[in-house]
Amino acid sequence: MVGGSNRVTDKDLESQFSLHQQNLEQMEIHKVALPQGNQSTWKSLKQRFGEVFFPDDPLHQFKNQTFFKKLVLGLQYFFPIFHWGSEYSLDLLKSDAISGLTIASLAIPQGISYAKLANLPPIIGLYSSFVPPLIYSVLGSSRDLAVGPVSIASLVMGSMLRDAVSPEQQPMLYLQLAFTATFFAGVFQASLGFLRLGFIVDFLSKPTLIGFMGGAAIIVSLQQLKGLLGIVHFTTKMQFIPVMTSVIQHRHEWAWQTIVMGTSFLLFLLITRHISMRRPKLFWVSAAAPLSCVILSTIVSFAFKAQHHGITVIGHLQKGVNPPSVNMLYFHGSFLGLAIKTGIVTGILSLTEGIAVGRTFASLKNYQIDGNKEMMAIGIMNMAGSCASCYVTTGSFSRSAVNYNAGSKTAVSNIVMASAVLVTMLFLMPLFYYTPNVILSAIIITAVIGLIDFGAAIRLWKVDKLDFLAFTSAFFGVLFISVQGGLAIAIGISVFKILIQVTRPNTVVKGVIPGSHSYRSLGQYKEALRVPHFLILGIESPIYFANSTYLQERILRWVREEEETAQKSQYPIKYVILDMAAVSGIDTSGLDTLMELKKILAKRSLELVLANPVAAVAEKLYKSEAWELFSSEGLYMTVAEAIAAISSVEKFYP
Amino acid sequence: MVGGSNRVTDKDLESQFSLHQQNLEQMEIHKVALPQGNQSTWKSLKQRFGEVFFPDDPLHQFKNQTFFKKLVLGLQYFFPIFHWGSEYSLDLLKSDAISGLTIASLAIPQGISYAKLANLPPIIGLYSSFVPPLIYSVLGSSRDLAVGPVSIASLVMGSMLRDAVSPEQQPMLYLQLAFTATFFAGVFQASLGFLRLGFIVDFLSKPTLIGFMGGAAIIVSLQQLKGLLGIVHFTTKMQFIPVMTSVIQHRHEWAWQTIVMGTSFLLFLLITRHISMRRPKLFWVSAAAPLSCVILSTIVSFAFKAQHHGITVIGHLQKGVNPPSVNMLYFHGSFLGLAIKTGIVTGILSLTEGIAVGRTFASLKNYQIDGNKEMMAIGIMNMAGSCASCYVTTGSFSRSAVNYNAGSKTAVSNIVMASAVLVTMLFLMPLFYYTPNVILSAIIITAVIGLIDFGAAIRLWKVDKLDFLAFTSAFFGVLFISVQGGLAIAIGISVFKILIQVTRPNTVVKGVIPGSHSYRSLGQYKEALRVPHFLILGIESPIYFANSTYLQERILRWVREEEETAQKSQYPIKYVILDMAAVSGIDTSGLDTLMELKKILAKRSLELVLANPVAAVAEKLYKSEAWELFSSEGLYMTVAEAIAAISSVEKFYP
Repeated sequence: MVGGSNRVTDKDLESQFSLHQQNLEQMEIHKVALPQGNQSTWKSLKQRFGEVFFPDDPLHQFKNQTFFKKLVLGLQYFFPIFHWGSEYSLDLLKSDAISGLTIASLAIPQGISYAKLANLPPIIGLYSSFVPPLIYSVLGSSRDLAVGPVSIASLVMGSMLRDAVSPEQQPMLYLQLAFTATFFAGVFQASLGFLRLGFIVDFLSKPTLIGFMGGAAIIVSLQQLKGLLGIVHFTTKMQFIPVMTSVIQHRHEWAWQTIVMGTSFLLFLLITRHISMRRPKLFWVSAAAPLSCVILSTIVSFAFKAQHHGITVIGHLQKGVNPPSVNMLYFHGSFLGLAIKTGIVTGILSLTEGIAVGRTFASLKNYQIDGNKEMMAIGIMNMAGSCASCYVTTGSFSRSAVNYNAGSKTAVSNIVMASAVLVTMLFLMPLFYYTPNVILSAIIITAVIGLIDFGAAIRLWKVDKLDFLAFTSAFFGVLFISVQGGLAIAIGISVFKILIQVTRPNTVVKGVIPGSHSYRSLGQYKEALRVPHFLILGIESPIYFANSTYLQERILRWVREEEETAQKSQYPIKYVILDMAAVSGIDTSGLDTLMELKKILAKRSLELVLANPVAAVAEKLYKSEAWELFSSEGLYMTVAEAIAAISSVEKFYP
Repeated sequence: MVGGSNRVTDKDLESQFSLHQQNLEQMEIHKVALPQGNQSTWKSLKQRFGEVFFPDDPLHQFKNQTFFKKLVLGLQYFFPIFHWGSEYSLDLLKSDAISGLTIASLAIPQGISYAKLANLPPIIGLYSSFVPPLIYSVLGSSRDLAVGPVSIASLVMGSMLRDAVSPEQQPMLYLQLAFTATFFAGVFQASLGFLRLGFIVDFLSKPTLIGFMGGAAIIVSLQQLKGLLGIVHFTTKMQFIPVMTSVIQHRHEWAWQTIVMGTSFLLFLLITRHISMRRPKLFWVSAAAPLSCVILSTIVSFAFKAQHHGITVIGHLQKGVNPPSVNMLYFHGSFLGLAIKTGIVTGILSLTEGIAVGRTFASLKNYQIDGNKEMMAIGIMNMAGSCASCYVTTGSFSRSAVNYNAGSKTAVSNIVMASAVLVTMLFLMPLFYYTPNVILSAIIITAVIGLIDFGAAIRLWKVDKLDFLAFTSAFFGVLFISVQGGLAIAIGISVFKILIQVTRPNTVVKGVIPGSHSYRSLGQYKEALRVPHFLILGIESPIYFANSTYLQERILRWVREEEETAQKSQYPIKYVILDMAAVSGIDTSGLDTLMELKKILAKRSLELVLANPVAAVAEKLYKSEAWELFSSEGLYMTVAEAIAAISSVEKFYP
């Protein structure tokens, strides 16, 4: 890449360089400085600790306040409801009531449908749309999050638990495991937040998430063919091939009444979705559509006695609010490991969705969200939920978008929604008796279809091939291997990407930009000129144990290649300058490498010089034996100064 | 850290800056360049692949050669013996013979002793000192490596296998597992080399290795108290507490004859070791000591009929060369997993030692070692060894040092050593009948005591606290938890260190160095001046999924802190410049973050400007939507040019 393109002929080299560097000898040479104020070990450890775990300095507002004010701020910090609650007004309530009712009309059919995705009784979906939103409205800091069950976490929980326990044959055990997994999801989420390890969520990179969600959406949609086609005996597997095989093998079970009803409602839902996407102001069209479908189809089904025409209906649903489920948590026995694992996986997935949604809408309204605190809120909400017959919940992307468009102002919209769900649970449950299952399938398909984002895939391909690889692996992994397998592959690729970047950092040969004292990559800047007698290498990474061997080999290769060319020239290399501007840190292995490199090059009559070390690196150099080796004539503040100082001694350019 | 210290009073700020930047308006503004030559996707992927897997360009010597020459070079590449063999002379042979015999005198007693560490019959130690050195002399590229069993790998193999199978009760199965583990160690090592994944070895950082080896050395030494004190019933556990408890509980078994003999020979060995360390020229003193001890103690033991005085002796050893052991490899059944795991752990440990030793002596003699090729050599050697009754072998640090000091020139010294071992196996085995076991314990202690390196620990504490933490964790982990546990903790800490560095990169506020166009950290350079109206932030890491959320938060915090100070000043911030010099790469998540940051800052009437993107970043910016956002007036080649261009438009400094 670099190398060949910028070689000027021998004659040019020196004159060109001298021409552009006429004021070389007048250059002021600065000493490389150490960080100011020699900090104690304890203090610098404390500061480093703060940077790692409290990068956002969450306590800054508490500084210089009276005790009482601190108390109030602390209360507001842990219970944001005290923050906005004191300024709440009737105007805000009006907005919140409208948006709350709008999302309730979505949440009720979606809750029932998503519970089915998780192989749970439909009523659990409604329970989960009641308690968690109430808890979140007290603890959460997002003003736009609409809380409840979500498709991906439901799917993953259903898929992971079904691998071990059949929801049809052991419904009680399955339910216990679902609540236990929810409890552990909450514990995991809250501890991530409490231990300020929120960055773990970042390891699910966006490309892998898009791939994963796209694949999961397709799997979910295909599974709904069971409902849409009216198939009775269907595979419980989640991969593309068994599902499609099952669809075709059971084609004698296809029921035309179901197909007609399903496709017409699906079409209606897709059209309303399309309208709302085109015109965000018409958000209510798609928001109201699912509930309208449920009502309409229930009436049709009731009028024509649909269950006698091969259309299955939901059937009897129990009235009443969430029963307690603490006694159903399962803390011993052979399935405990599975419950914990399911909890962690669904916990991290739902956390990722919730945090991402919260951040998105916060940045639209220009307020900030404290990720770690939000994790605690979501975690506590799930822990409490698991004791009140709820399964995993989080902030749903689709419902939050509706909430935002409907003009929600505070978390009160969640309270309004929960109240609407409560009314439904108390009084309206019998109305769902005749609701056809096919409608739930149509609602699920419409909800997940938005997760398939081909535009993003094309953009990834154009901008970053490795990101695209992560995307496709996650996508096809989910589709053809398994939901967990796809997720594992996606995370594996993300980590591999980090490893590649960490162990194989970039090194570039630099030259001077004519008319400046800037040294830039020869591969990037065509106008950059090589400096005779010098090899200037830019190292673009910290130097530490994971890459020090590589860097040593790579630098020696640069030197070897450069010497092979320089042999034919009249300007043999005499100095190797490492531009350390991009070396953000160094450890003892890195220091050893620098010292060894200096010795190896010295044996070849080359001198190694360091330019522009950052504070952390300068400090480490100072504390180690490397200081003696470099400090007197091997350490400069800039590459330009290194060249000026050396060539004034060596008289390279008289 | 930064921030407070460099605030000058308001009055100074502008005048100081103007004073030092008089030629600001004459500054030539350069365009940020994209990498030269728009490469195709395929070509750039190929090049990236080459950088990752072939950083040392191993085929460069094959370029521009005739077919025949290529064939010869290829042969020499895979069998280095053809390289040095053709120039071999009698002079070289003389040196190699001396050093070969010297290391043989070490290898024979050490081989017998190390086999005992691995709970294997002593003869296996001799077998392993015969076949592997011969294979290495043909395939290996190091001239100084002395190949054979080593203490750490022996200890770890013994400890891991004993957890599942008792060597006393099931000696045959244990032996099978040892050979099988050796085979898999070889397969693992050779595949690492073949797949050019040698960098995996680098994840065992030096501090963790020092800690691990120090802890292991102490455990091994303590275990030798069994032999030194003549205890008959001893714990098989490897931790500090059970071993010490066992020593004290069985004090009635202590035998004074053994103790006297053991301590006197141990003292002798330690003194000779000390002499050789003080004067490297007297290397032969410590090199000859073990064999002398064996001979002397055997004579004493024979003369006084030691076995009648409570001193146990080695007893009968079978004569003859290595029997084949292919039929003993164990490829099925319940212990296969254990054998593979043991193989991988001992494989990576022995590889680390072998490669490190090879590199150390290569750099002393100024030649280079191809790590990946060396891995293949060691791997093939172990695979072959496992079929010839050998267990895991590698280049031993202690014996290689003796080899080097004794003046070895080529791998022929290994052949000489192997021949000496062969003669021993064929003719001298009966002589070991009366050798007391206590001598083997003394030899082991002397060999491993050098692995305890307190000097290195102190240096780590002084230079790098995190490295010191890795050291102590590995050290105490081995001592108090288990050998494998200590190793796992050590690797865990190393990986955690990478994660911290990756997810929590450094950001600094920069100012101008008076009289230059260099912008440096205010925390590092006392003379650096803040630039009024500008906040200049240096980002010292690639921006990607694992840190983009953090960086966004951290940058916004810098802005907030700066604005809080600037409110009181007459120079409110108007521009935020990100110095991207140290941002070595960016992915789609990073691009999204930059764009979002630009929008968030714009809402606060601040403009985000990027300076000095490297080639890879400039290319990604160009390919994405970020280009439109930044290219016209938000992208400069240097921070100085950004400030010059902006202030000439804004007329900040008239």
